[in-house]
Amino acid sequence: MSRPAPLHLIPLGGLSEIGMNLMIYEYDGQMIVIDCGIAFPTSETLGVDLIIPDIQFLVEHRQQVLAFVLTHGHEDHIGALPYIWPQIGCPIYGTDMTLGLVEHRLREHQLHTQAKMVHVDYRRPFQIGPFNICYIRVTHSIVQAAALAITTALGTVIHTGDFNIDHTPKNGVGTDLFRLAHYGEQGVLALLSDSTNVTVAGNTRSEQIIEKCLDNILAEATGLVVVTTFASNLHRLQTVIEAAERCGRKVAMVGRSMLTYMQIARSLGLIKLPADSVIDIKAVDYLPREKLLLLSTGSQGENNSAMVRITNDEQRNVRLQAGDTVVFSSAFIPGNETTIWSLINMLNSKGVSVKHYYAQRDIHVSGHAPQEDLKLMLALTRPRFFMPIHGELRHLNMHRQLAHEMGIDLQHSLVATNGDYVELDGHSIRIVDHVPHGRVFVDGKGVGDVGDVVLRDRKHLSEDGIVVVVMVIEKESGHLLERPELLTRGVVYEDESQDLLEDAKMAVEEAFDLGPKALDFNEDEDVGIDDLAVRALRRFFKKRLGRRPVVLPLVMEM
Amino acid sequence: MSRPAPLHLIPLGGLSEIGMNLMIYEYDGQMIVIDCGIAFPTSETLGVDLIIPDIQFLVEHRQQVLAFVLTHGHEDHIGALPYIWPQIGCPIYGTDMTLGLVEHRLREHQLHTQAKMVHVDYRRPFQIGPFNICYIRVTHSIVQAAALAITTALGTVIHTGDFNIDHTPKNGVGTDLFRLAHYGEQGVLALLSDSTNVTVAGNTRSEQIIEKCLDNILAEATGLVVVTTFASNLHRLQTVIEAAERCGRKVAMVGRSMLTYMQIARSLGLIKLPADSVIDIKAVDYLPREKLLLLSTGSQGENNSAMVRITNDEQRNVRLQAGDTVVFSSAFIPGNETTIWSLINMLNSKGVSVKHYYAQRDIHVSGHAPQEDLKLMLALTRPRFFMPIHGELRHLNMHRQLAHEMGIDLQHSLVATNGDYVELDGHSIRIVDHVPHGRVFVDGKGVGDVGDVVLRDRKHLSEDGIVVVVMVIEKESGHLLERPELLTRGVVYEDESQDLLEDAKMAVEEAFDLGPKALDFNEDEDVGIDDLAVRALRRFFKKRLGRRPVVLPLVMEM
Repeated sequence: MSRPAPLHLIPLGGLSEIGMNLMIYEYDGQMIVIDCGIAFPTSETLGVDLIIPDIQFLVEHRQQVLAFVLTHGHEDHIGALPYIWPQIGCPIYGTDMTLGLVEHRLREHQLHTQAKMVHVDYRRPFQIGPFNICYIRVTHSIVQAAALAITTALGTVIHTGDFNIDHTPKNGVGTDLFRLAHYGEQGVLALLSDSTNVTVAGNTRSEQIIEKCLDNILAEATGLVVVTTFASNLHRLQTVIEAAERCGRKVAMVGRSMLTYMQIARSLGLIKLPADSVIDIKAVDYLPREKLLLLSTGSQGENNSAMVRITNDEQRNVRLQAGDTVVFSSAFIPGNETTIWSLINMLNSKGVSVKHYYAQRDIHVSGHAPQEDLKLMLALTRPRFFMPIHGELRHLNMHRQLAHEMGIDLQHSLVATNGDYVELDGHSIRIVDHVPHGRVFVDGKGVGDVGDVVLRDRKHLSEDGIVVVVMVIEKESGHLLERPELLTRGVVYEDESQDLLEDAKMAVEEAFDLGPKALDFNEDEDVGIDDLAVRALRRFFKKRLGRRPVVLPLVMEM
Repeated sequence: MSRPAPLHLIPLGGLSEIGMNLMIYEYDGQMIVIDCGIAFPTSETLGVDLIIPDIQFLVEHRQQVLAFVLTHGHEDHIGALPYIWPQIGCPIYGTDMTLGLVEHRLREHQLHTQAKMVHVDYRRPFQIGPFNICYIRVTHSIVQAAALAITTALGTVIHTGDFNIDHTPKNGVGTDLFRLAHYGEQGVLALLSDSTNVTVAGNTRSEQIIEKCLDNILAEATGLVVVTTFASNLHRLQTVIEAAERCGRKVAMVGRSMLTYMQIARSLGLIKLPADSVIDIKAVDYLPREKLLLLSTGSQGENNSAMVRITNDEQRNVRLQAGDTVVFSSAFIPGNETTIWSLINMLNSKGVSVKHYYAQRDIHVSGHAPQEDLKLMLALTRPRFFMPIHGELRHLNMHRQLAHEMGIDLQHSLVATNGDYVELDGHSIRIVDHVPHGRVFVDGKGVGDVGDVVLRDRKHLSEDGIVVVVMVIEKESGHLLERPELLTRGVVYEDESQDLLEDAKMAVEEAFDLGPKALDFNEDEDVGIDDLAVRALRRFFKKRLGRRPVVLPLVMEM
């Protein structure tokens, strides 16, 4: 019997960051891609709309790619498909809900009719080339999430996707511990497990605790109640709608994505609502405020989201007033804290009572496994090798340490990051190569045309603004035909700074009179009048204002 | 006996925000100003260096202002003095350490010789006009902090400043509970109390717990150890230096503010260091790394701070390597989290072990009183009226609620915000008027010349960049003499976008050919060629890139 070929794991995203998950499995020259997600922009990626993985490597090996296999329908697992799938063009596998969301995203890019979608059931293994794949149900903050058992001639790898272990989820069907135990009993080659919440102690707190918490809040509330949460968390939406029903409130939904998710879920029969429990937002006028509950997007204080519009009195159908209640049924994603707190302060100033996770823990539970759940996953699957996925370096390192405490030899585990080419051969796990990887920025319709240079410019512009200096010269003589013209934006308030700008103009003219040496250029330098103007203006604004605006010269020859 | 005049409290900063503390006490036409702090810039105040309160009201009443009375030396309590004091020009009261720091700040602005400073001792009441003031010792994350007992004919107000209640502080002298109890026994008219940590349950954890935690970390550490913390927290610095001494490491300090604070504290005899325990950073080469501990600024990941430079291998004297340890002895200030975590990931990637508050709670304690301390303050002082200070609206509201639970009638307490004119007359507390207030931005040498318009421009520039279009026309005919010129910054990478820019130029020329109507201007509008160019370019970039850069036109007449 010949020795089986090694398995290769090639993460192009999600390993050294939260989000942008994309992992390639390569076996015997054939590949599948697990998940294809985006990362969200940060305060550093100015103006960028979203971030997708650099897939140069995948494109080069396009011929070998058999399928995209998706664990669940969150944006950080499917959101990059509209940009990446067209370059690869193979079937997409997933559960009904996941593919419903994929179709919605592809439709936005007029791609939905082209992609072949393969609907997958839990516990029904199927074959893609050398890979036998079995979807295993896991609980997460979206319905129909899955861990994958990926079996090749070398053995079975469990790829958890995002998961937690909620024993009493909304729909009564928890993480499929039996199937995980089945593989553990048989013998698991390797476990690749979600590290997002490895810093959190304890077990998953069940979605159930939210019911009681909401009931208490609603029992006390006298005015209008707004609950904001992630639109993708169907179980949460259902929990809220049922709580509203119990206390005699009708629910109206606000925010486009809320309607999208609900529509897809309803068409798949994944959400069951009490009759007449949900009304159209346009009908809210017909109900007294104490009979109404709004379910809103914008729990992260996203720009122009429904919750922000409601707070700013910009929502067409409702206006908050003193005595109303707003419930944030969500955690604050790192980076969004200050925005959300200022939203809450604004609501407070209107006399609106605000309930949130940081005062009432039972108003939200995370979809990611904390430490004790992660240990249970390790215990059930008893893997020979371990590789943490989904997380920043600090998460991955900590998860590897946790696995070590569970008996996984450090020689048998590995922290890999994006672009590592990991080989698993039954005897060892190691990084044998590196492949191109990186982040590609999507800004408006442009994919990849905004890079680090442009971002550096935007950062500079954002800190000190810009000064444009235009000089018209005679072609032959090189003499100025007019006084230089100055335009500024983001430097000072121009209407009140005419004197300053006049002085700046004079500084440029003086520089022309005195020549390069007065501005400390070397004698042998080839100094144009644009160079002179730029240096003169830089020095002027530094000295006068202590600022360093971008200075942009334009010389027009006539 | 005539009825005593009412007391007025006029907050110009710190009430509806964290930072920028400034509160005016007015009695019988005379005023004192308690604290004069800055707020730190946020992700919204692009490029701004610091924020100070708008003191128009104070300037208008300059003749009535008798003194600045400072509770302690943190920047959010003294940092605005260099900008505000020159406009008022009265004596400044404070403890030795506080005035040492004030002098340092004023010296940076060449103002230190002009200001009259009055050094104050605890428990030694003094009179300023109608105000009798007694400094009461409180523990806080800076030495020589004070609460103030401010007595007028109407009664005594306790103004806590920033405080916590640490029964076992580093120097052995805790918050002066006796003095607080003394006033409580006599009868306190009103309490104005620090709300910063009102959301935190429990009591202050003493600075002492940090010693044991540090000892454990140092016992395990094999390589170089870097501890980063706030330079102003002298007790913390002393704790670290002593722990280093115990385990046989010499301490070298990095970061300018660390040296400043140490120098002032030593000159005042406020820090006692074991002999030879501190060495110059330039001498670190002579010691093996396991005999060395660096004490560094930059615990908040501040741009260009020592900790950032160390992490980026830009510090001249030391280079981190695998096996070294970095200790963040600090909490992460809201808004800084992502920056600090990415610093930690970077350290992790070098194989450096990182210890921080969010994994080891005993590595830091807060300087602000949590709920049980706040209750103790209320219990000891037993005030008739209560007004929460230092906090966002949500903190102030919660603190008022806490006071209510402690028996303060809601009629006797008040949430005031900046600019409110609060009257206290012995029978009631209420807002009777409003005065001008606001935030003034300091950017480089400019104070107040960057306002909301400039910030809005910077924000816009940061998101989509800028396009400048220059058109040279003949004065008489209005005809273009040259093709329009385009410059962009922060929109696309220009070197790779020549075609795009050529197309944009053509879009402008086409607009000139087709005239205003083709761009949907109304027939009766007065449309210049600058208007045409701007609209043409906006539409071009929207359509082509889905972006909305700032478009800045310049028409030069020849």
